[in-house]
Amino acid sequence: MQFRVIAKDKTTAARTGEIVTARGRIRTPVFMPVATRGAVRALTVRDVDELAFDIILSNTYHLYLRPGVEVLKQAGGLHNFMKFSGPILTDSGGFQVFSLSEFCRVLDDGVEFRSHVDGSLHRFTPESVLDIQRVIGSDIMMVLDQCTDYPVDEKQAREAVERTVRWARDSFRHWQENFDTEAQALFAIVQGSVYGGLRRECCDRLRELPFPGYAVGGLSVGEPKELYREIAGLTLSRLPDDRPRYMMGVGSPMEILHAIRCGTDMFDSVMPTRIARNGTLFTSGGRVNIKSSAVESDSGPLDPGCGCYVCRSFTKSYLRHLYRAGEISALIYNTYHNLYFMNTFMNEIRESIAGGRFAEAYNKWDAVYGNGDI
Amino acid sequence: MQFRVIAKDKTTAARTGEIVTARGRIRTPVFMPVATRGAVRALTVRDVDELAFDIILSNTYHLYLRPGVEVLKQAGGLHNFMKFSGPILTDSGGFQVFSLSEFCRVLDDGVEFRSHVDGSLHRFTPESVLDIQRVIGSDIMMVLDQCTDYPVDEKQAREAVERTVRWARDSFRHWQENFDTEAQALFAIVQGSVYGGLRRECCDRLRELPFPGYAVGGLSVGEPKELYREIAGLTLSRLPDDRPRYMMGVGSPMEILHAIRCGTDMFDSVMPTRIARNGTLFTSGGRVNIKSSAVESDSGPLDPGCGCYVCRSFTKSYLRHLYRAGEISALIYNTYHNLYFMNTFMNEIRESIAGGRFAEAYNKWDAVYGNGDI
Repeated sequence: MQFRVIAKDKTTAARTGEIVTARGRIRTPVFMPVATRGAVRALTVRDVDELAFDIILSNTYHLYLRPGVEVLKQAGGLHNFMKFSGPILTDSGGFQVFSLSEFCRVLDDGVEFRSHVDGSLHRFTPESVLDIQRVIGSDIMMVLDQCTDYPVDEKQAREAVERTVRWARDSFRHWQENFDTEAQALFAIVQGSVYGGLRRECCDRLRELPFPGYAVGGLSVGEPKELYREIAGLTLSRLPDDRPRYMMGVGSPMEILHAIRCGTDMFDSVMPTRIARNGTLFTSGGRVNIKSSAVESDSGPLDPGCGCYVCRSFTKSYLRHLYRAGEISALIYNTYHNLYFMNTFMNEIRESIAGGRFAEAYNKWDAVYGNGDI
Repeated sequence: MQFRVIAKDKTTAARTGEIVTARGRIRTPVFMPVATRGAVRALTVRDVDELAFDIILSNTYHLYLRPGVEVLKQAGGLHNFMKFSGPILTDSGGFQVFSLSEFCRVLDDGVEFRSHVDGSLHRFTPESVLDIQRVIGSDIMMVLDQCTDYPVDEKQAREAVERTVRWARDSFRHWQENFDTEAQALFAIVQGSVYGGLRRECCDRLRELPFPGYAVGGLSVGEPKELYREIAGLTLSRLPDDRPRYMMGVGSPMEILHAIRCGTDMFDSVMPTRIARNGTLFTSGGRVNIKSSAVESDSGPLDPGCGCYVCRSFTKSYLRHLYRAGEISALIYNTYHNLYFMNTFMNEIRESIAGGRFAEAYNKWDAVYGNGDI
């Protein structure tokens, strides 16, 4: 994996560049749609291909539980299993173990947990999650980290940082010794909750090892927006300039723009697809609630400026009808549109940075999305 | 609408032909996928286009309740609303009023019912359901009929036949006087439950008026299979040779083949799509339960002989994984495949009739699907 910055904004830390992997080039800043269990919810793989994202994300925890390592091994990895040929990044499962498991016990050398599917007992170690990601065939792997809830006291946050750093070192060693490090990159994850000192320390200690990329974890977990922005900003500024910076789980237009301003290169979030399934759609003029009676007879497209299949084909009136009738196609069309929006949005931001117009783009979107929560 | 028989089987009543409408040619025998509320469940309209069915079916009762006549009028009809340019047949709503409504009272001149959606009170008459179908823009409209449950005593069945015949006459007159009869054809529906005498009488009385087509209603509503076949056979044989015969709500391969043998030209059923959503898939070798642990590691396609996108792309193992994980894409892929199967199956049957090989085709499929209930 190679990363290079192509252009930088003059007044902020925003930058545009590219990550080159064996499976394709990823233009940054990039938004990665989430295919948690080997499928983007409500879309076919050919829809995903058509949307032409440079990379998608999948999840080690979910894939480990279902379909399981043996099935993935027999399929020759996730790319072949789901028939997606572009780059795939996989989260390590750390976040899911701590947030989804019925039971979870942190050990010095890993974490023991019960499956949220059937209650069975499992153990993840820094090494084992990489071995699973090897079977998955991830182009970018993430280390096992200890993700803390919000709020958490500083003592607990420090313990999580200590463990996260130790596990990152174990991961790095295992990766160096046992992997094709060019084919499968490994990113570290910064923890430290909302404690600036801990965040800085975690960054500095992780930087001691030359990871190909660094992610910010443990944010967007319920902390107030201002605190999120402060901690995100100081953490991002502490990460190396010559490596991709990845803000995990952030996906609203304004949070993305803020993080890009602080130098972020990569994003993932289920938010655009989740709100789509709830009838909230992104447009160039702001959010549209497709359930609203206001669009009952609206024969215009969802977003006249959008070139996606849904906007070129259907009226708001039809989309509302499908949603209210509980049609599965409502979920398909809404998801397709919101992901198309995200891709177009990211394209525009990348071009604005390359063209020296990032502030202009920021202000334009701030006027549209600056007041909402999402 | 024009209908012509192109070829007949030598030993049975099976025949192949074509119905020509302003919106396209329908090769018969034809299977119509069901887009109850203006969408085929789990598919996009471009999936439906790609599957290339000659005609689809939608439902007056459902469309009348949601999105309603005003919205459809403003959209310029259902074709424009859902962006489907091929022929559409609409059921009159008779069957749904009797089977879905919370309350339903049969009057001499129509039926009063409460919406299953919100309990509101409505009335359908032979004339009003045609007026709704005019707004929908149906290429083939169905008359309002009184559909009986199974079992029903002969006296009640006779009353339903009397009403059905009277309503068919009212419908015919309204259609002749107020419609572009070339652009919007009208089919009559035969009732009579499982009483052969009533069925024959209903056929004879409906034949007194030159409807462009005749449908058999009130079957496949729970009667024993043998009784269904007997009544279907005698009813179909009593309908005019030079008009399309439509067996309503029948969709399993063997019931279709039996009805084709008795001279049926048209079919509709939600069965292939409903069982798809429950994980049961049609293949050339019989039904496959995609939930089964037997296919957990099966790296073969669902049906090696099938040319559909799903069979060309994915393994049974992946399809099982998606289904078990509750992914929406499982519903999409399964539905797509079963409809592709139905279309291919009907193509093969049409060709076998044209080529004088219908008995051969019947026996081939009987060996595969003859023992199952579906």
